[in-house]
Amino acid sequence: MDINAPIGVFDSGVGGLTVVREIIRQLPNENVVYFGDTARVPYGSKSREIIIEYSRQIVHFLKTKKVKAIVIACNTASAYALDTLIPEVDVPIIGVVLPGAKTAAKATVNGKIGVLGTTGTIGSGIYTKILHEYNPAFMVVGKACPLFVPLVEEGMIDDPVTVEMASRYLKPLMAYGVDTIVLGCTHYPLIRSTIRNVVGDNVTLVNPAYETAVSLRTLLQKQGIYRDCGEPTYRFYVSDGAAKFSSFANSILPVELVETRLVPIEEY
Amino acid sequence: MDINAPIGVFDSGVGGLTVVREIIRQLPNENVVYFGDTARVPYGSKSREIIIEYSRQIVHFLKTKKVKAIVIACNTASAYALDTLIPEVDVPIIGVVLPGAKTAAKATVNGKIGVLGTTGTIGSGIYTKILHEYNPAFMVVGKACPLFVPLVEEGMIDDPVTVEMASRYLKPLMAYGVDTIVLGCTHYPLIRSTIRNVVGDNVTLVNPAYETAVSLRTLLQKQGIYRDCGEPTYRFYVSDGAAKFSSFANSILPVELVETRLVPIEEY
Repeated sequence: MDINAPIGVFDSGVGGLTVVREIIRQLPNENVVYFGDTARVPYGSKSREIIIEYSRQIVHFLKTKKVKAIVIACNTASAYALDTLIPEVDVPIIGVVLPGAKTAAKATVNGKIGVLGTTGTIGSGIYTKILHEYNPAFMVVGKACPLFVPLVEEGMIDDPVTVEMASRYLKPLMAYGVDTIVLGCTHYPLIRSTIRNVVGDNVTLVNPAYETAVSLRTLLQKQGIYRDCGEPTYRFYVSDGAAKFSSFANSILPVELVETRLVPIEEY
Repeated sequence: MDINAPIGVFDSGVGGLTVVREIIRQLPNENVVYFGDTARVPYGSKSREIIIEYSRQIVHFLKTKKVKAIVIACNTASAYALDTLIPEVDVPIIGVVLPGAKTAAKATVNGKIGVLGTTGTIGSGIYTKILHEYNPAFMVVGKACPLFVPLVEEGMIDDPVTVEMASRYLKPLMAYGVDTIVLGCTHYPLIRSTIRNVVGDNVTLVNPAYETAVSLRTLLQKQGIYRDCGEPTYRFYVSDGAAKFSSFANSILPVELVETRLVPIEEY
């Protein structure tokens, strides 16, 4: 495997850029190829079968870019498609759920953990399953927050409506006395401060993106394919709206995007 | 053309069922084949190019069902794809925008018309263009309401958050003194009462679904292919989540759905 080969990262849209941001910070020499499925976004309320089909097409596309590893930077796709794709792909592939759950398991003191996510991620029960592998005594409370993604995409970050919805979604978790909450969707870190204001200072908020980058580095180092010198290149592909994507990406990434290219993803 | 051939109706998801409901009421003997693109929903914030591509695939699918006419029951697809598809298809094809605009043009007294729609529909400027063909003196105020679709899909019909968003979206229109408002997205009639509460009783709310069914009947009668007797059949197809779709359809249609079938729409 070529050490200079890129890392493939994909998401249903722009949310996975929060994972790319962590990769740029923690693995600053790695080349990255990103795919955002902006034509078929969102994934959060769609079926397991269709998410597996879409994820498989994207993995086929990333393979044409000769990637040395793949990161599923979308919680819903990680929840539904990771286990199916691992035996189908000849490069290592990781999701964001396992790293997120691991961080939460280490962070909790009272063993009560809340998980926020899409309807798909929460409905899959995957965070609960993995957290119980760490400790069967953990109490895990999942809460689907279907309006957070459209609110974030509308830029209503500090809006009273977002505060109201955060309050509704988080109240049941707080009633259970959770001391740790996983932000189990890549959009949610973007309203972290609103969530923080609702839950107060005594709850640990876990962003799986950070630990995903840590896991990725460990994996590459173990396999002897970690690139630790040289200028990196970043390439971005989407299935729709390349200009809109570039503009969003330039606003949250610490690098200048040269361009975003359109891919007819249904053909892969 | 076979008079017993079905009418093909399509939408990005479930919203177009409000148009099917009107067809069942006004053309009670017509057979209907419906396709909802639930795998790729929503269309409202995606590009013209991708909406044309998706609409073209759906038209190809409907053609395999030997439809005698096609109704684009989605405002965004009507706005972006209708003009492109008309010369490509050998059966009559109509959208919801022209009938909606026609009704508004007849309804307004003071010539000030508001249009609510998705980012795509409003951005296309199509309602303004068509209304100005009726009367260049009309003042048309468009307002994109991107949160209405997720709010409706979450069932938050009478929720204070929906009232708050309706108030924000409608305030600019009311400030202009509009006397007529087009509900330019098939989801919006489902929150008609919330919108009514915000705008008061002196504004006419136009639901393009009603006039679309009227236009369809006129078209079929003119071409001598209107079916005015016999029991109708209704067939439903989606690209994802057939069970969820059936359940929603059964809640808003006056007929019992036998079943909804999955279609691999990307192959058309």
